[in-house]
Amino acid sequence: MKNSQGIIFVISAPSGTGKTTICERLLKSSPNLKMSISHTTRRPRAGEKDGVNYYFIDRTKFEEMIKNGDFIEWAEVYGNLYGTSKKIINDLLNSGNDVLLDIDIQGAKNIKKIYPESVLIFILPPSIEELARRLYNRNEEPNVIRNRLNRVAEEVIQYEFYDYLLINDNLEKAIEEALCIINAERLKTNRINKDFMNNFLKTI
Amino acid sequence: MKNSQGIIFVISAPSGTGKTTICERLLKSSPNLKMSISHTTRRPRAGEKDGVNYYFIDRTKFEEMIKNGDFIEWAEVYGNLYGTSKKIINDLLNSGNDVLLDIDIQGAKNIKKIYPESVLIFILPPSIEELARRLYNRNEEPNVIRNRLNRVAEEVIQYEFYDYLLINDNLEKAIEEALCIINAERLKTNRINKDFMNNFLKTI
Repeated sequence: MKNSQGIIFVISAPSGTGKTTICERLLKSSPNLKMSISHTTRRPRAGEKDGVNYYFIDRTKFEEMIKNGDFIEWAEVYGNLYGTSKKIINDLLNSGNDVLLDIDIQGAKNIKKIYPESVLIFILPPSIEELARRLYNRNEEPNVIRNRLNRVAEEVIQYEFYDYLLINDNLEKAIEEALCIINAERLKTNRINKDFMNNFLKTI
Repeated sequence: MKNSQGIIFVISAPSGTGKTTICERLLKSSPNLKMSISHTTRRPRAGEKDGVNYYFIDRTKFEEMIKNGDFIEWAEVYGNLYGTSKKIINDLLNSGNDVLLDIDIQGAKNIKKIYPESVLIFILPPSIEELARRLYNRNEEPNVIRNRLNRVAEEVIQYEFYDYLLINDNLEKAIEEALCIINAERLKTNRINKDFMNNFLKTI
């Protein structure tokens, strides 16, 4: 059964919630799901590759893209610019894929405005103490951790804006739940290709 | 994470679609999901047990229950009465369970009217030819098969009234998809217990 058009899945989560691992596993398990790679002015971290993790561009180029209306949504986070390219998303949807987006709540709101049928998933750590512990273990600096926790507080309070909420207290369970959300959304009657059903009805 | 209240899942499907097997497997895989057993005036088939498959009652008793307003929905199908008891559903919900209901489209409509948050799932065979083949293999009589296929035609055309549509072209896949629907619905933000989130927010 084919859906009438690709579905956009947005995942938002505080850093340290396991979001990156969950996204990687979703892409592996679901061949029709493709990540929309964001543009950013942030410098690549060790191991990050241009065109894989992000398109790494400079601020001048980024501001040019803003001016050209190339971004569906963009945001400044901790002094770095992040943006989602309209063309990348539409190319993926037009080639019959579902799209996975890893963006923050402000970006999620913009996506929902433009694509009301998109599916918004928020991932939480089991507790704030656990999140702080995970960030310490990643050797983040105390002021970075403080900033992040403040940001979590601002975001979590808006959880009702999202369609689904996952608690990552067990990574495998969280991945399975996220896959279930993707599978279930694909089975919704309002997403079903009318031609498919008309063909079925003709056999009766 | 606990949901603020139990969820009602309604499964409708033409006979021969594998609905009974799917329901049995869902109940096994999901301990918090309980079947709401219907009342019927139909005679038990070989192997069916009172209080397990149905509550088998006579027409006088059934009509008394209708008069008392004991049923959320009831219907006459092929000359037999089937009804869903209000008390059974509410007892299950109040004891912290989700409820599985195996009823037809008319019953599903009544459930949705009374419980707008209920989740309606429609299961289809891969094709009408395949359904006819399955019914022949069950040694159903030709006029029974004709009746059933006519009924399918009437029902399928209303598929958009349901929230989800499954095609059972592979039993294991269909069971997995039905389980995903149940899991995903439990993760919807609008079903989340507000106390749970308030407690989380307090830790920030």
